[in-house]
Amino acid sequence: MIVVMRVGSPEAEVDRLCEDFEAWGLTPERIVGKHKVVIGLVGDTADLDEQQLQECSEWIETVLRVERPYKRASREYRHGEASEVWVSTPNGKVAFGEHHPVVVVAGPCSVENEEMIIATAHAVKASGAKFLRGGAYKPRTSPYAFQGHGESALGLLAAAREASGLGIITEVMDTADVEKVAEVADVLQVGARNMQNFALLKKVGAQDKPVLIKRGMSSTIDEWLMAAEYILAAGNPNVILCERGLRTFDRSYTRNTLDIAVVPVLRSLTHLPIMLDPSHGTGRWEYVPAMAKACIAAGTDSLMIEVHPNPAKALSDGPQSLTPERFEQLMTELAVIGKAVERWPLPEPVLV
Amino acid sequence: MIVVMRVGSPEAEVDRLCEDFEAWGLTPERIVGKHKVVIGLVGDTADLDEQQLQECSEWIETVLRVERPYKRASREYRHGEASEVWVSTPNGKVAFGEHHPVVVVAGPCSVENEEMIIATAHAVKASGAKFLRGGAYKPRTSPYAFQGHGESALGLLAAAREASGLGIITEVMDTADVEKVAEVADVLQVGARNMQNFALLKKVGAQDKPVLIKRGMSSTIDEWLMAAEYILAAGNPNVILCERGLRTFDRSYTRNTLDIAVVPVLRSLTHLPIMLDPSHGTGRWEYVPAMAKACIAAGTDSLMIEVHPNPAKALSDGPQSLTPERFEQLMTELAVIGKAVERWPLPEPVLV
Amino acid sequence: MIVVMRVGSPEAEVDRLCEDFEAWGLTPERIVGKHKVVIGLVGDTADLDEQQLQECSEWIETVLRVERPYKRASREYRHGEASEVWVSTPNGKVAFGEHHPVVVVAGPCSVENEEMIIATAHAVKASGAKFLRGGAYKPRTSPYAFQGHGESALGLLAAAREASGLGIITEVMDTADVEKVAEVADVLQVGARNMQNFALLKKVGAQDKPVLIKRGMSSTIDEWLMAAEYILAAGNPNVILCERGLRTFDRSYTRNTLDIAVVPVLRSLTHLPIMLDPSHGTGRWEYVPAMAKACIAAGTDSLMIEVHPNPAKALSDGPQSLTPERFEQLMTELAVIGKAVERWPLPEPVLV
Amino acid sequence: MIVVMRVGSPEAEVDRLCEDFEAWGLTPERIVGKHKVVIGLVGDTADLDEQQLQECSEWIETVLRVERPYKRASREYRHGEASEVWVSTPNGKVAFGEHHPVVVVAGPCSVENEEMIIATAHAVKASGAKFLRGGAYKPRTSPYAFQGHGESALGLLAAAREASGLGIITEVMDTADVEKVAEVADVLQVGARNMQNFALLKKVGAQDKPVLIKRGMSSTIDEWLMAAEYILAAGNPNVILCERGLRTFDRSYTRNTLDIAVVPVLRSLTHLPIMLDPSHGTGRWEYVPAMAKACIAAGTDSLMIEVHPNPAKALSDGPQSLTPERFEQLMTELAVIGKAVERWPLPEPVLV
Repeated sequence: MIVVMRVGSPEAEVDRLCEDFEAWGLTPERIVGKHKVVIGLVGDTADLDEQQLQECSEWIETVLRVERPYKRASREYRHGEASEVWVSTPNGKVAFGEHHPVVVVAGPCSVENEEMIIATAHAVKASGAKFLRGGAYKPRTSPYAFQGHGESALGLLAAAREASGLGIITEVMDTADVEKVAEVADVLQVGARNMQNFALLKKVGAQDKPVLIKRGMSSTIDEWLMAAEYILAAGNPNVILCERGLRTFDRSYTRNTLDIAVVPVLRSLTHLPIMLDPSHGTGRWEYVPAMAKACIAAGTDSLMIEVHPNPAKALSDGPQSLTPERFEQLMTELAVIGKAVERWPLPEPVLV
Repeated sequence: MIVVMRVGSPEAEVDRLCEDFEAWGLTPERIVGKHKVVIGLVGDTADLDEQQLQECSEWIETVLRVERPYKRASREYRHGEASEVWVSTPNGKVAFGEHHPVVVVAGPCSVENEEMIIATAHAVKASGAKFLRGGAYKPRTSPYAFQGHGESALGLLAAAREASGLGIITEVMDTADVEKVAEVADVLQVGARNMQNFALLKKVGAQDKPVLIKRGMSSTIDEWLMAAEYILAAGNPNVILCERGLRTFDRSYTRNTLDIAVVPVLRSLTHLPIMLDPSHGTGRWEYVPAMAKACIAAGTDSLMIEVHPNPAKALSDGPQSLTPERFEQLMTELAVIGKAVERWPLPEPVLV
Repeated sequence: MIVVMRVGSPEAEVDRLCEDFEAWGLTPERIVGKHKVVIGLVGDTADLDEQQLQECSEWIETVLRVERPYKRASREYRHGEASEVWVSTPNGKVAFGEHHPVVVVAGPCSVENEEMIIATAHAVKASGAKFLRGGAYKPRTSPYAFQGHGESALGLLAAAREASGLGIITEVMDTADVEKVAEVADVLQVGARNMQNFALLKKVGAQDKPVLIKRGMSSTIDEWLMAAEYILAAGNPNVILCERGLRTFDRSYTRNTLDIAVVPVLRSLTHLPIMLDPSHGTGRWEYVPAMAKACIAAGTDSLMIEVHPNPAKALSDGPQSLTPERFEQLMTELAVIGKAVERWPLPEPVLV
Repeated sequence: MIVVMRVGSPEAEVDRLCEDFEAWGLTPERIVGKHKVVIGLVGDTADLDEQQLQECSEWIETVLRVERPYKRASREYRHGEASEVWVSTPNGKVAFGEHHPVVVVAGPCSVENEEMIIATAHAVKASGAKFLRGGAYKPRTSPYAFQGHGESALGLLAAAREASGLGIITEVMDTADVEKVAEVADVLQVGARNMQNFALLKKVGAQDKPVLIKRGMSSTIDEWLMAAEYILAAGNPNVILCERGLRTFDRSYTRNTLDIAVVPVLRSLTHLPIMLDPSHGTGRWEYVPAMAKACIAAGTDSLMIEVHPNPAKALSDGPQSLTPERFEQLMTELAVIGKAVERWPLPEPVLV
């Protein structure tokens, strides 16, 4: 932090401030010019708030953060190296990370019944997906809409995992359900609406399963990385960041605005692996192929794509789901881009 | 819902669709013109999704919702009458509602210690506040920032309630804490970040304490009313809606953009009482007086204002807190506007 | 500007930078600490760009602007005093400013014919308006929509001015029309869509008529004040700032989000008078009264309100126009708030 | 348009409305059901406003637009076929369009002097660019910032055109400058801030040079296509649409949010060619390569990229400019993606 004092600040006031800063465990460095005094703050400044600091004295002109508010999530924390998140699946271990092939996660918005989830698992596996997504607990805007089959759907996911060998990624929405979900899921998903559900972040941070954290639809990149920091600080080093579209002023044609620029931005800020979700990011299956290709060209480590055997009959999010046939076609097209950027073929799982 | 069919739609397709709609428990009404056919859907359409419906047939040109997605929260549900939320406090019952004086809720962002919370309670009561706000559990962007004193702070709130006679409004962030918080709070607050934490909404909907639900910083009015609908549908009829500022592109001078227009908009849509929070809505105490006056002139039923005995030393949100002296001055100014719109003096509590 | 150098920056690099800064006409001040060097830049920094400066050397850690980018528009430029904009009208001179009564500007979106504009002028004058608004040139999203009657409408405005004695405020959209419009208008309006039409700003800055500049619907406050600065820098000191609503993610019920907080924010930043436009700010006449009252309570210097004798037949913006009867009723209600804040009765024009 | 009448609407009211609609030149079709009456409107509805229509009668429940508000810009206008914009350059004719290779436009933000613009032209041509961009007139937030060299810069662009054979794309900001700019430019650019400068749109629509129209930073896709419609309706069929980033709530790392989804969305709505500008879209040259690759994978017809021989000394927009060396490297990388999607090699100009 840099604290810029107003011209003419009394020395006694600068002294007093420096003492306060020391009392907070910081090391203030006084930088004195002919007209201006500036105080540099060294130490653990991650929990300081610039506005708050400014209130400490009327003589403070402005306060500037020059370091990032997150630590464990920062690229510097790993000395510039990318981290990789390895996930065990029945078919072998799969790695998410900058130096690995693109991992494709596919499946329906929600688990509707045994037949559909197992059929979908087989279909997306045949096309090259390594993980099955599918909601047991569904965040729905309306209390009258289908809320997911809950605990019984977890059993169906377990069956689909066994039948297909795919890893399972599913959302957890309540601290009370974390253990239950963690028994079945290979990756725990925290949804966009819960990105700042801090009680939930602490709880998933205490599990030994990797966590996928979706960006809130109006969360800044710093807030998102701070949400990841909650999980890391709670002891879980296996976090994947998933962008799924921002809320903007124009929702006539797409439900959200997919912020693909997070790929190069996150690459410079954090070591954590990156996933993009063009299905939620656009809300229309017709736009998913163009955007999925763009995501791979931009350098994403992973893609999440909604696939449903019969989108017109889907209990939720039908309009953004691909049929298995369209998904198969898409995977062929993605392979072309993936090979061009040398992030394809799909990873051969390491058998363990 | 109105389903508009494309010109030239085969009659068999219209038949098939009408059968599908009937199978869903709806009553389709066929409206036939010379060129176009339109299907009106009567029945419980609150859980239908327009996009989803459109996927049912390639012959559907567009689907239009003509009714609101919420029921219990709608003004029509009470035949156009406003509801009032009565809250018991040690000083008597206080009513929130369109036909009652403006209720002022004041207090610090977080409960720091017994002395400060009791002193603040006495001070804001002396100036005319009817409720004390104060956080025991605090949603903080950083895992390294002060997270609130939690359970022990609940005890301090109980002490402040007893000492001052004020009602207590405090936030609950986790389903696991609801009962604990409900023992102390007179009104349970669901924060902006948890507005779509549906597990939490269901749980507070099952309590017998009134619930204050803040609007998410990028939630639409419909989403907000649907969140209230979760609580109402779970059996709790006592819900207060609190606007606390939207996230917009300009955060140079104010932290959020307070959307005062919710007052006339909500008045036409819902019977529920309305609160505005100019402290979070601006993020700077200097702007709170002008905005608080505007809120009353617009017709709000209630105001939430942050007050801290020593904002420069506050453990959170200091820059937006008024000192007790400034709060006292503000209440004098608010009385002028409040009297002009005949929503003042402050309510005389009914002793019970 | 404050330039913060990285730890370990070579002295030669700091020397080189200081020389560069001097070559740009700035006076660099070197502030040396034990670990860090900071360079303070004194001089005319209004045209420096922080990002640009940062590119000057890889050793620069960050660049911080500590002064405002505008000069003439700043409150400091007038030593903390508000400016007042006096406008001559047939009925006398009217002042816009912090220490004057609220000025109400009313009239239709566009000038449709002589009868309607003169009738409206008489009606709004009778209710207390001091200025007539009405568009001759209309910015319309569609090339097929009514574009305003243009030059002939200017003649009708002149007739309405003569008939009623009201001042005229009308929009100019093209540099080619500025002189023509300035012959009739008492105040030239630059619309929200043209807020950054810099050629137009320079041209109206060279006129001797006051200018009303509307905030772009996604312009920051700094950008808005810089637009005013263009006019001031071109030699025209009579500028009024008009907020008319921001574009946000929720447009279901209001067309825009009126940012009333600009009132206290601008008061601290600039000496220029402030106007608010609740008609465009909400887009629905039903919401105008509540918002107009809020604007006055917040401290606005002026209000712009759409009034049309027959909104259902209006050629543009009917849904946000009040009838003359509703406007008369509104003025009665506004008087109550205006008197409470001592900014009413309406100004008695100074006869000249 | 579909006008949905309330249940119980009097027949006389429906009659009256239908007469009104006929008087406006529309053909109303009455669609009568058991409970509801719906009126379909056939004819030229592009200039009707839904809200306006609704004001016509209290018995109207809602009004729904079922057709697009634009005509000439719509894909249907060309029976589903893409249009191609051919531009003559000294090196031959170049086509922008869906069935042509990706066209790369490169150059500095502003034309600074003859040496730099000619050197840049040669460099970007050598790397494969077909057009040189460069600003003579610059829209700058501050009146004190460099405003472009204006007319004299047009001469330098002409010199660079002759020296390199590249086509020239440059911005016009004022109706008064259109002819002057059209003498030099091969493509006239309308900037994002002028997207709704309707006087300018009409004027460039009357030229015989192609027009590049940038999307306003908070303009909807419909507004953007309506701006293109202004140009098309004025008689100029050669319009290219350029997306350059939206203004969103998070500007910490990127200046704007590049909305790559416009590629598939526009493809379904319009026949016009599409360009993307990752330089303005991110505001940081470091992020340009990843985004440029994503744009090509998504299917863009053209790219605009800022290149400056010495970004640290650039008079504007240095931080988002690539050096010629980095641009050359980028073109190599783009070729890989471009070939994968069969939109590369760069077009061999047709010599004429």
